[in-house]
Amino acid sequence: MIIQLADNLSVGEELPVFDKIKSLGYSVTDVRTNVRRYLVCTGSKPFDIRSIGNMPQVSDVHFVNDANQLVSREWKVGRSVIDLGDGITIGGNELSLMAGPCSIESEEQIETTVKFLLENNVRVMRGGVFKPRSSPYAFRGMGYDGLKMFYDICKKNGIRIVTEVMQADQIDQMLDYVDIFQVGARNAQNFTLLDALGKCGKPVLLKRGISGTIEEMLASAEYIFSGGNEKIILCERGIRTFERASRNTLDLNAVPILKKRSHLPVVVDPSHGIGIREHVADMALAGVMTGADGIIVEIHKTPEKAYSDGQQTLNFDEARKLFANLRQTYALKQSFNQ
Amino acid sequence: MIIQLADNLSVGEELPVFDKIKSLGYSVTDVRTNVRRYLVCTGSKPFDIRSIGNMPQVSDVHFVNDANQLVSREWKVGRSVIDLGDGITIGGNELSLMAGPCSIESEEQIETTVKFLLENNVRVMRGGVFKPRSSPYAFRGMGYDGLKMFYDICKKNGIRIVTEVMQADQIDQMLDYVDIFQVGARNAQNFTLLDALGKCGKPVLLKRGISGTIEEMLASAEYIFSGGNEKIILCERGIRTFERASRNTLDLNAVPILKKRSHLPVVVDPSHGIGIREHVADMALAGVMTGADGIIVEIHKTPEKAYSDGQQTLNFDEARKLFANLRQTYALKQSFNQ
Amino acid sequence: MIIQLADNLSVGEELPVFDKIKSLGYSVTDVRTNVRRYLVCTGSKPFDIRSIGNMPQVSDVHFVNDANQLVSREWKVGRSVIDLGDGITIGGNELSLMAGPCSIESEEQIETTVKFLLENNVRVMRGGVFKPRSSPYAFRGMGYDGLKMFYDICKKNGIRIVTEVMQADQIDQMLDYVDIFQVGARNAQNFTLLDALGKCGKPVLLKRGISGTIEEMLASAEYIFSGGNEKIILCERGIRTFERASRNTLDLNAVPILKKRSHLPVVVDPSHGIGIREHVADMALAGVMTGADGIIVEIHKTPEKAYSDGQQTLNFDEARKLFANLRQTYALKQSFNQ
Amino acid sequence: MIIQLADNLSVGEELPVFDKIKSLGYSVTDVRTNVRRYLVCTGSKPFDIRSIGNMPQVSDVHFVNDANQLVSREWKVGRSVIDLGDGITIGGNELSLMAGPCSIESEEQIETTVKFLLENNVRVMRGGVFKPRSSPYAFRGMGYDGLKMFYDICKKNGIRIVTEVMQADQIDQMLDYVDIFQVGARNAQNFTLLDALGKCGKPVLLKRGISGTIEEMLASAEYIFSGGNEKIILCERGIRTFERASRNTLDLNAVPILKKRSHLPVVVDPSHGIGIREHVADMALAGVMTGADGIIVEIHKTPEKAYSDGQQTLNFDEARKLFANLRQTYALKQSFNQ
Repeated sequence: MIIQLADNLSVGEELPVFDKIKSLGYSVTDVRTNVRRYLVCTGSKPFDIRSIGNMPQVSDVHFVNDANQLVSREWKVGRSVIDLGDGITIGGNELSLMAGPCSIESEEQIETTVKFLLENNVRVMRGGVFKPRSSPYAFRGMGYDGLKMFYDICKKNGIRIVTEVMQADQIDQMLDYVDIFQVGARNAQNFTLLDALGKCGKPVLLKRGISGTIEEMLASAEYIFSGGNEKIILCERGIRTFERASRNTLDLNAVPILKKRSHLPVVVDPSHGIGIREHVADMALAGVMTGADGIIVEIHKTPEKAYSDGQQTLNFDEARKLFANLRQTYALKQSFNQ
Repeated sequence: MIIQLADNLSVGEELPVFDKIKSLGYSVTDVRTNVRRYLVCTGSKPFDIRSIGNMPQVSDVHFVNDANQLVSREWKVGRSVIDLGDGITIGGNELSLMAGPCSIESEEQIETTVKFLLENNVRVMRGGVFKPRSSPYAFRGMGYDGLKMFYDICKKNGIRIVTEVMQADQIDQMLDYVDIFQVGARNAQNFTLLDALGKCGKPVLLKRGISGTIEEMLASAEYIFSGGNEKIILCERGIRTFERASRNTLDLNAVPILKKRSHLPVVVDPSHGIGIREHVADMALAGVMTGADGIIVEIHKTPEKAYSDGQQTLNFDEARKLFANLRQTYALKQSFNQ
Repeated sequence: MIIQLADNLSVGEELPVFDKIKSLGYSVTDVRTNVRRYLVCTGSKPFDIRSIGNMPQVSDVHFVNDANQLVSREWKVGRSVIDLGDGITIGGNELSLMAGPCSIESEEQIETTVKFLLENNVRVMRGGVFKPRSSPYAFRGMGYDGLKMFYDICKKNGIRIVTEVMQADQIDQMLDYVDIFQVGARNAQNFTLLDALGKCGKPVLLKRGISGTIEEMLASAEYIFSGGNEKIILCERGIRTFERASRNTLDLNAVPILKKRSHLPVVVDPSHGIGIREHVADMALAGVMTGADGIIVEIHKTPEKAYSDGQQTLNFDEARKLFANLRQTYALKQSFNQ
Repeated sequence: MIIQLADNLSVGEELPVFDKIKSLGYSVTDVRTNVRRYLVCTGSKPFDIRSIGNMPQVSDVHFVNDANQLVSREWKVGRSVIDLGDGITIGGNELSLMAGPCSIESEEQIETTVKFLLENNVRVMRGGVFKPRSSPYAFRGMGYDGLKMFYDICKKNGIRIVTEVMQADQIDQMLDYVDIFQVGARNAQNFTLLDALGKCGKPVLLKRGISGTIEEMLASAEYIFSGGNEKIILCERGIRTFERASRNTLDLNAVPILKKRSHLPVVVDPSHGIGIREHVADMALAGVMTGADGIIVEIHKTPEKAYSDGQQTLNFDEARKLFANLRQTYALKQSFNQ
């Protein structure tokens, strides 16, 4: 059960609601986001929901069957849209495109990419400055200096950035230089990190775990929301299966299922999802046809020279064609829904 | 290495080719299909391929790196198209639609479905008469009588049928009443069945194994081809993963990968691929966007009353809308390839 | 619900039992094995079981909660033991050892192996004459001639044989030359084959499917039993997982779980289960410690020269040491159960 | 290539070695542990290894083929033993037993468990104070206060403790109250945490990732070692598979494979590995038979009342019997190795 408290309650005015919940034998989690205050209640005893709904301190109340209540579509009218300012949004009735290199490598690389994105009307750039690498001897990214450079150049050009945070204690130092925090597949169940991102105030792009289920992904999103942050984007990026011909198995089934279960926007990462450059475009187009709100894709001026993920990265010509085709595909898909 | 022998060789005229292969230390499999005769050779010693290509008994010769040589795209100019007569084909530059119930249930059911398919210009009907069931106590299908009825009604109406064969010893009795033999996911590595289908002369729709890899699927297709049958359709139908929110995980990555590796047509089964009726259409559309040559989908006049698979079966209104959308999507996808 | 009919009923005498079942709204499957006649009933309406138990035609009746009733441990007093004659058994309170090459290769090979087995008091020899091979160009086994030779030599020496059957239509021709039919991992859900083995009268060693679950394995066993054959041995041989360091992942969890759920004997195949020769012995010993009734292991006089599976095959010295250690381990494990 | 520098080099004395490595085109990672200083070099150019081995600043040098060089068995003579003081070790020629509840719950619980462990000569107690929970609304452990109480009681009684750390920034505050840091399955690729544990000076018990491979586990161990910490214990605790009858699939194959590849000690967690109380003992015994150096098992005075994991927790009677049987099994296994 989710109780939305009325706005502008005085201190202590909410206490009778807590008393009422307690008297029903329900436990309660008090969630304050930048949007409003929710009481998430769990319990099993049936009762007349109006006895809460009619309290003056309560603006709305819903029974929610899903274990992950706040991210569930059951209680929310309409779908969540993440507003990044200047008319840039994720979710809603427009296709969101996010593109950029796997790793931030240099000022020149950022400038070139930004120029290309602007020409193609893509307003969100991806790029990693902290790279999770399974070998301790591999390149681990440009770190905070790279981040500031990345953010500053993009900001000057009206571009938002999405970049991976690997640990809760990085958030403070990164906060002023990030538009969207990305949680990587290996951190999808790093609950301390999820908790901390619940307090950070910035949007979070949450990737599915390497062999994570849809249910687990929603539970991870619930961590962020219950921590106090409603601005969450779910990202399907492929799961581990027995198939060795592709890097991962892009589970496009997850898109309609997630959109059915949750009000959060859903984007697809075809680059990691298949891991083979010449097939990335096909999978991106398919992602849009399943109903995705956006695509996040790896691009590089010269993929052959990229520090990482070159084998799954599009060059600018390939990306230009893909963006145009994605927009046509999105328009066709929208026409099917009418 | 694949050697295509010249047509119209007299008996014994090919022997020098065999001698030549033997002298090179290669082993050879002699494959005769309805199209031509191939010698599939395996060995590792390098030599000048022209020494075989120039023999008068040889029309063409290719080195093929793939282990599954005959189904590989390396040696074949153009892609394979399965011709079912009357202008009905699978592969090529037209979208193939196949639809019908999970199980054949009655004459009335077949008639109604055929009528619906004709109205929508769908020329291939699916339907099972032998059902593999994991419990020995469940409905196992209408058997041979159902098959004859199914085939006769469809034939009268210019519709081709695709139906599952479960065992090599069923082929003879089914042969006159089948247009396309389907190999189910559980039989994807039933090598005796695959061998026997290599001799049957009819097209074969080969489903991917329940947790089979792309490489294993191609090896199974190679069995059929090397048995003497070139008319093979590959079908992606979902694999088993940890995800429990869907019946299977439709691996759409497999479509572009299979089309890159093999000259055989590739179709997608979204019904088993996701197993949830309201999401089947999304996955079918996505399948076309990845480059599939066709879609095979479960439909029923009243899915709620279907003997099996009702939870993933579309009704006629849903199917009608889907067919139209699939055709639009296919046209858009074709435009991207130009 | 399983009803055991009384022995020696006259023809038609059982009809009142069928009428009674029908009147309760239950469906019934009539199962006749070499041991007795069972009526397997499925339905959900509660009733007083004594109303059936008290019928004179009924010797015993049990409610069984498991879907796979006949193989369930719920109704059976004691555990099943497979009697192969001459004091050779599988199950019960003795460790069963089965050993031999992957493929039968020659008379000399059989003779040598039999001699070795006799020296070590191992009474069941394994060996394949029909080999399922994923490539159509690989060695497929010695066939029926090899089988006869294999059987005859073993019979002369008091050794029983276990060998794989790949297709229902092979059973008749193999029947006189087989002591235990093996169903391979790829055929674990070949229901036509399982059905046919239900009628064959010979013991069946059923391997777990390549990515099959325990529940599916029990369902496959139920097929054999409900076809009329009680003589079933369950074999854990590893499942497919993401781990690439081993050929399969030997799921030893399955041993205690299967023994808890079913009255059938359970054996372990460490050779396929890990696929690495130097670790086969460790896994065999562990299998016994989990409670397995037997071990089936690949051995060869010179594994380096074996036609197949040499990388996971023990030589005679290794096997001799293993047999001794297995027996000590089994004795220790038995002592823990007292 | 691993270069062990000579002990007691003066500052700067090692520089010629770095120059030499650089001149060969190799990259180098400088690793200082409490034991010695290693230079881990990666490159591919062949050269005469004696040109480094003969340098006076070098005590030893080895080519290592494994990507994870420091944890590889290729360079190390003998196996690593973790010394916890007072004769308590992990690895070597003695079976290590670790036992305790899933969660630390109260002082009384700790006292009772410690008493039981002492009676059974078990010297390491497990217990969680920070619990990773997939739902944000579940019990998350007693935290730092619980940790101090846990540590103090155990220290007084000569017991060492192993407890999970979930985040790098917890290490400092936990450090004085932990004997062995445990890295949980969900954190197996939390590289920031692994890096930080490389500097902490305390032993680390590293659990295998939820669907992690053996290679990934060794890479995670390499992170810790290359960070400066040689005291690592590898723990097999089951992986995610399709099997639903058990909580996880205990991959005992991993034990001999890990011991072949790495010099680190390997322990088995049968509690999470099967997740079913009545089968935990069987799997523990099997673990010892595969060659494990130790067993870590969940026990509780009254498992039915445990805050978490009660379904897989042994009571004291069960645990007492298991410890005795494990010791007998270990002795038998040791006798096989002679």
